[in-house]
Amino acid sequence: MNIAIVLYDRFTALDAIGPYEVLSRLPNARVAFVAAASGPVTTDNGMLTLLAERSFAQAPKPDIVLVPGGPGEVVERAGGSTLDWLRQVDRTSTWTTSVCTGSLILAAAGLLDGKRATSHWLALEELARLGAEPVAERVVFDGKLVTAAGVSAGIDMALMLTASIAGDTVAQAIQLGIEYDPQPPFDAGSPSKAPAEVVELLRNRSRFEAEKQSPPAPLSVPQ
Amino acid sequence: MNIAIVLYDRFTALDAIGPYEVLSRLPNARVAFVAAASGPVTTDNGMLTLLAERSFAQAPKPDIVLVPGGPGEVVERAGGSTLDWLRQVDRTSTWTTSVCTGSLILAAAGLLDGKRATSHWLALEELARLGAEPVAERVVFDGKLVTAAGVSAGIDMALMLTASIAGDTVAQAIQLGIEYDPQPPFDAGSPSKAPAEVVELLRNRSRFEAEKQSPPAPLSVPQ
Repeated sequence: MNIAIVLYDRFTALDAIGPYEVLSRLPNARVAFVAAASGPVTTDNGMLTLLAERSFAQAPKPDIVLVPGGPGEVVERAGGSTLDWLRQVDRTSTWTTSVCTGSLILAAAGLLDGKRATSHWLALEELARLGAEPVAERVVFDGKLVTAAGVSAGIDMALMLTASIAGDTVAQAIQLGIEYDPQPPFDAGSPSKAPAEVVELLRNRSRFEAEKQSPPAPLSVPQ
Repeated sequence: MNIAIVLYDRFTALDAIGPYEVLSRLPNARVAFVAAASGPVTTDNGMLTLLAERSFAQAPKPDIVLVPGGPGEVVERAGGSTLDWLRQVDRTSTWTTSVCTGSLILAAAGLLDGKRATSHWLALEELARLGAEPVAERVVFDGKLVTAAGVSAGIDMALMLTASIAGDTVAQAIQLGIEYDPQPPFDAGSPSKAPAEVVELLRNRSRFEAEKQSPPAPLSVPQ
């Protein structure tokens, strides 16, 4: 079971590491972090660098592909080797998956056309614009395409995938192994539950960052 | 607000990255991954390498210290620079924290003597043996010492810390930003909830691994 997790400049770490922590515990799993070029890749806040073990060329046929989100997704979905590689590996993958705004990259690659999919709650409109049918659920299966909502939702997605691949007992054993018995101090993890002013705070910051993070002209996002 | 997250060979990635994803979003947060030497550090399964940005010597006075767990903890708590540095930085830290078996390292450094603390559910007996008062709760505060249960519990701990440091609204905004509205497919994340055979499976594997992972003689664990 070869699992490829895509890295790119300014990805969000937990999008990738949540599912990695679950999927790497599957029997006979081999996780490789892959990127356009092997070597260091830095996260969205510039405070953490991971090493991509392999280049895309060195990972031609993963069984599971996972694309994390993060502000750098804007650059990835503007075109280039990430989209080319995703289209290629999706032909033979068993599961093609994303977390958070990673689904915008899958959509830009044309892999979510007309499919039910999810993304970070602030990105669902953009997901629709890119041709998917957005669904405000935490994890969405549409055939072999599986998408998770924002950041932490990748953990739930990975446990569901684990149950599909290896059965409920293995999934439960992994859940118990990572002691995933969530007890957040607030019930504010979705826009339907968080206080209205907190939702508005995030919406405003999102608009501000969308303007601030517009990529330079050569990488401008296709409409 | 300087936050130092300790890395060491064979740590568990989610122990570190869960809290990083929350704490890095605190206003004016600066997270640095630190290790005995700066440079690459590989996780417990050998499938992921992170870069430690700083050596311990380059991080003399963090406000928050976080120690992740992982099978490599056995080597760390046998003595050496990690324990020395933890004793040093705890003198001036605002919060000294751990996730999973990271609490065994804090205990070995003498920082949990007589204190209420938690750890991975499979490590609570060892925690007691090292001088702490083990508590089977997900997050335990004892003064400025804060410990979380296994792996994923670091996310809950980081949100609680965030609320203490920056208030409920900031914590809720971060929770909503990472869409932490957990929906695991099973309710098997603690030994009191998982099916008995799953609990037994993990207990047996833990015993097996404890034998397999005994460090070589010069690093043998002090009794």
